[in-house]
Amino acid sequence: MGRGATGRGATGRGAMGRAVMGSGGPGGVAPAGGGPAGGTGARGGVRPLVTPAAVAAHAEQYRDIGRVLVTCPDRPGIVAAISGLLFRHGANITELQQYSTDPFGGTFFLRIEFHREDLADGLPGIEEGLAQLAAGGAAMRWRVTTPAVRQRVAIFVSKADHALQELLWRTHAGELEMDVRMVVSNHPDLHDIAAGWGIPYHHLPVTPQTRDEAERRALALLASQVDLVVLARYMQVLTPRFLAAFPDRIINIHHSFLPAFVGADPYSAAARRGVKLIGATAHYVTAELDAGPIIEQGTERVDHRHQVADLRRIGRHVERAVLARAVGWHLQDRVIVHSNTTIVFA
Amino acid sequence: MGRGATGRGATGRGAMGRAVMGSGGPGGVAPAGGGPAGGTGARGGVRPLVTPAAVAAHAEQYRDIGRVLVTCPDRPGIVAAISGLLFRHGANITELQQYSTDPFGGTFFLRIEFHREDLADGLPGIEEGLAQLAAGGAAMRWRVTTPAVRQRVAIFVSKADHALQELLWRTHAGELEMDVRMVVSNHPDLHDIAAGWGIPYHHLPVTPQTRDEAERRALALLASQVDLVVLARYMQVLTPRFLAAFPDRIINIHHSFLPAFVGADPYSAAARRGVKLIGATAHYVTAELDAGPIIEQGTERVDHRHQVADLRRIGRHVERAVLARAVGWHLQDRVIVHSNTTIVFA
Amino acid sequence: MGRGATGRGATGRGAMGRAVMGSGGPGGVAPAGGGPAGGTGARGGVRPLVTPAAVAAHAEQYRDIGRVLVTCPDRPGIVAAISGLLFRHGANITELQQYSTDPFGGTFFLRIEFHREDLADGLPGIEEGLAQLAAGGAAMRWRVTTPAVRQRVAIFVSKADHALQELLWRTHAGELEMDVRMVVSNHPDLHDIAAGWGIPYHHLPVTPQTRDEAERRALALLASQVDLVVLARYMQVLTPRFLAAFPDRIINIHHSFLPAFVGADPYSAAARRGVKLIGATAHYVTAELDAGPIIEQGTERVDHRHQVADLRRIGRHVERAVLARAVGWHLQDRVIVHSNTTIVFA
Amino acid sequence: MGRGATGRGATGRGAMGRAVMGSGGPGGVAPAGGGPAGGTGARGGVRPLVTPAAVAAHAEQYRDIGRVLVTCPDRPGIVAAISGLLFRHGANITELQQYSTDPFGGTFFLRIEFHREDLADGLPGIEEGLAQLAAGGAAMRWRVTTPAVRQRVAIFVSKADHALQELLWRTHAGELEMDVRMVVSNHPDLHDIAAGWGIPYHHLPVTPQTRDEAERRALALLASQVDLVVLARYMQVLTPRFLAAFPDRIINIHHSFLPAFVGADPYSAAARRGVKLIGATAHYVTAELDAGPIIEQGTERVDHRHQVADLRRIGRHVERAVLARAVGWHLQDRVIVHSNTTIVFA
Repeated sequence: MGRGATGRGATGRGAMGRAVMGSGGPGGVAPAGGGPAGGTGARGGVRPLVTPAAVAAHAEQYRDIGRVLVTCPDRPGIVAAISGLLFRHGANITELQQYSTDPFGGTFFLRIEFHREDLADGLPGIEEGLAQLAAGGAAMRWRVTTPAVRQRVAIFVSKADHALQELLWRTHAGELEMDVRMVVSNHPDLHDIAAGWGIPYHHLPVTPQTRDEAERRALALLASQVDLVVLARYMQVLTPRFLAAFPDRIINIHHSFLPAFVGADPYSAAARRGVKLIGATAHYVTAELDAGPIIEQGTERVDHRHQVADLRRIGRHVERAVLARAVGWHLQDRVIVHSNTTIVFA
Repeated sequence: MGRGATGRGATGRGAMGRAVMGSGGPGGVAPAGGGPAGGTGARGGVRPLVTPAAVAAHAEQYRDIGRVLVTCPDRPGIVAAISGLLFRHGANITELQQYSTDPFGGTFFLRIEFHREDLADGLPGIEEGLAQLAAGGAAMRWRVTTPAVRQRVAIFVSKADHALQELLWRTHAGELEMDVRMVVSNHPDLHDIAAGWGIPYHHLPVTPQTRDEAERRALALLASQVDLVVLARYMQVLTPRFLAAFPDRIINIHHSFLPAFVGADPYSAAARRGVKLIGATAHYVTAELDAGPIIEQGTERVDHRHQVADLRRIGRHVERAVLARAVGWHLQDRVIVHSNTTIVFA
Repeated sequence: MGRGATGRGATGRGAMGRAVMGSGGPGGVAPAGGGPAGGTGARGGVRPLVTPAAVAAHAEQYRDIGRVLVTCPDRPGIVAAISGLLFRHGANITELQQYSTDPFGGTFFLRIEFHREDLADGLPGIEEGLAQLAAGGAAMRWRVTTPAVRQRVAIFVSKADHALQELLWRTHAGELEMDVRMVVSNHPDLHDIAAGWGIPYHHLPVTPQTRDEAERRALALLASQVDLVVLARYMQVLTPRFLAAFPDRIINIHHSFLPAFVGADPYSAAARRGVKLIGATAHYVTAELDAGPIIEQGTERVDHRHQVADLRRIGRHVERAVLARAVGWHLQDRVIVHSNTTIVFA
Repeated sequence: MGRGATGRGATGRGAMGRAVMGSGGPGGVAPAGGGPAGGTGARGGVRPLVTPAAVAAHAEQYRDIGRVLVTCPDRPGIVAAISGLLFRHGANITELQQYSTDPFGGTFFLRIEFHREDLADGLPGIEEGLAQLAAGGAAMRWRVTTPAVRQRVAIFVSKADHALQELLWRTHAGELEMDVRMVVSNHPDLHDIAAGWGIPYHHLPVTPQTRDEAERRALALLASQVDLVVLARYMQVLTPRFLAAFPDRIINIHHSFLPAFVGADPYSAAARRGVKLIGATAHYVTAELDAGPIIEQGTERVDHRHQVADLRRIGRHVERAVLARAVGWHLQDRVIVHSNTTIVFA
């Protein structure tokens, strides 16, 4: 089973909401060794976040790997139809996960990773077959992704660096197979971290007066350049316009406690109640603040000796681990959004 | 260090809010082998929850063990004064824990467990010395407890049995050193469980009409008979009058999530948001529902495959473990309430 | 998805090693409301472990549910062939999990849970189809199970009761859907626990002289009566003859540490090294002592204050939780043994 | 309570084995803003690991903070004697932890953190008093440390960077208050990481022929320069001569499993057994390989889908977290070695 695969959806033309670029689009022609770090070499203390050799190895590893993701009303025969389609087109299923909210009238979710010799030759037939199934059935949404091309990611930050550092370190270590195109921030503080890896850093200050203009500039930077936005402790609220540009493709990390404490300073409130656990929640961003579909959560034990500053410090460790797991699953197309929940085929 | 000790405060006469019975009071004269189970033998399928031999062994183990608990404004010399006092009265400190919210102007908390040959002879002097310290200083609250006499406990339940079973099993296994005097319930369902261990079961139905009368009867049952009330999934709200009778001596367990879900059916709300962690919180009961000082918390991982019924089932496992830990620490005088938090010298 | 299902394999006639009784065998004719506890009522303080109503509800819930388990060399088309077969025979897949050790030349594992109206009418065709697939392919092992009939279990114990109590409590609570046929022990100590639930308790003392005879008697008790043997802290070594009678159907729980400590008193050795984690491992029993395929593991934190007795106490809590999870997965046919490992479709 | 304090023992002159430099020694005169990173500025892409401002803030925070660590046979009056001594010398206890292996004839351990206005004036009297106590009593070992001066640390690595990166990141974030003097390695691979933070990197290749010479050179580099050696995945065995130079001051991290797997490739052995938990153990290095006193341990869940490479990857995450916690406690003088165990006043 190909754990560790990631993949930007490069070929999906299905009816699913998360339509992705066709194989002839900008994603497809991106050179395998590209990305901002790829060409910088080691001049001036800049190390490439992912070496060209690592990018090439990734492309080779996933050369003939594809993924099918399906969401539809549950009914008998779905697995048989899709696995039969893949078999007829020469594809060997290497990983299959499914889930049904209710076998009788519920919603069915399917993720298949497959190997197909000469994938490019086989994809059109597979996609055509899926389109026919969708046309025949009711409300079947599907997409096909090809993980050989890494997803392009923008990381949004403010002043805290822990989540950014963890994402970059795991990318450098080969654990997160993504192409970090840029770091965007409303503060200049983390410029050097990005620059040290050769990643463009865009400082877009946000004030009540400049908010609209800043977001417009951010959207212009991202347009056609980015498949996923990760809010790595970005302390600004995004507008509905921004969210609409990346449906189910903006991941946020925030603190969370049992029970919840709302308001401006949750760590102080938690300390006043004497909580014994500090938590973090990674979720997709929706219009309702911090109430989007949860992808992953984690906790760490604390006790009465931990002051508010200690709670914040421990919270950072939970946040970076939880966010990294959530991003990793998203990159591997393991997360499917359903209503306000996620199906995570981890 | 004497981990595993428990103790009902048998001799405290200090200024601390949780004043406990003097050594000549009802607690002191309770026969060591007493308790409802002690005398029942094994007639009619009834097994004693704690055998007379186990009760005797407990009394012997803690025969000369005492505990001092102190809360006061922090200032230099407190540890020296109290440890010096104990030393002068022949006591050997076997465990000492302290915590200060702030060494400069904060509140200081101290728990000392000590061994003193012929404890009964030494206690009056120690208590007198503590009283003098309190008289001299500002706002020092203290108490002395003697764990040889087990705390007497009433367990309140409704229909769910998991928390009750866990408490009884751990008591039988010698892990919770308490004297379970009674089980009180607004339903008859769990009668047989209590009866099987020879524990009196009081069924006090609660309706809007009978609420006052039921609580009056419950208070009458508990009066002078019980040191601690454990709400083991008791689904009724207690009145301020009841709470006032057992300040910082009523422990409750309830579900809790990250983030919190309020209302009548939190598990369904959690399922709708797709939580990945199920939690439980044990806390002292205060007038504000479910907002009292937290003693212990725990979580368990879940995923999208867990239906609401699964969440409830997993929640039960977290609840029984968290409640048992909280009760155990309370029985060992390890929990000190401070504002709305607890200091847990676990 | 049918989480919470359990099932004794009642109909499998496949080539897989774990051949199970045909539907006309003793398992099949056991009355749905049967089991030792079923008929006892509540006389003499005996409560049924599972009420007849709960047994009937279980049978109804799984009335038309079947499971297919397949192990074979990986090759393209397996999922398509089996899902197509099920579809043609009117079965709707409600849960499917697969894993391949290597898509190119590795071993493939499949677990499918399906619903088929009038299951008894559809099973022969499904089994015939699987047999044909197996005949055509190389080395495909398969079995079909019907969870409507609960697996029959014997629990072996010595003196410690924690693991037994947990298994019985979870069975009573409906979390472990098994038919506890007997408790077998080399000591009389836990008789009353079994008797309180109306479960036959067989005391078979084991000495070097009586070992052979005791095991012979145990095997006679189990023959045709039991699908699974759970060693719930049974402190005797089983002979190869015994193991051969229940291949991959004997589950054991034992302590385990990081790093490992061998010999007669591992908890003391662990205390001397100052371990910070206590663990437990549930595994299938094989000829090599404590080295069989691992099903589940767990740990709990400890520190320097925990004496050997504390480590043992905490070890008990880990053991009962880990064993209960392992048994639950086995009962739901979620565990497939492969070489010396397990595939756990949890 | 001063959590987060670290401290190199700058003034201890006691009888305890871990004698540390006097206050007039090289540690004492090191400029507060010193250290390799301190003076480098940001030239050529080099960022200081700890800014001069952070070093100054640390020194200010701990200006008048001292710590007393005591190990002695348990007997009545120790706490009274030492707390009385501190009180007479104007010191206010801000944190006190003690532990006795057995109040009757066992060993007693004490850690006190205190504040004393004009600490330098008070220290001589406190140390003299402790020396008198030690002279009067039997076998009392003690030391006094002053955390205002950070401990000086050498990090040994081979090729894997995860543990090094975590230590440097936490130091930069202010969570580990140490002065990283050098990185030593038998490979050149991680040079750039150290250089990027302005930390000297010493490449000392080790072959059977050069082993002795390499270790001699390493010892020469460390002499009088380093208080603690951290083996952050350093894959060479140290000789008894090296260990003797840093008794209880070399911390190692290594994988560990339940049960243990020995030999050259433990991850493959663990995969063959199908372990469900991956672990890591941080310990002090002793002559017996990987068998020294354990400081901290951790685990992470895995399942059958994790290949050997996945186990290694997950193992890295456990290792870096466990090592960082162990180093942090050591830096705060929270770890006392006793026989082959540790007392961790965490």
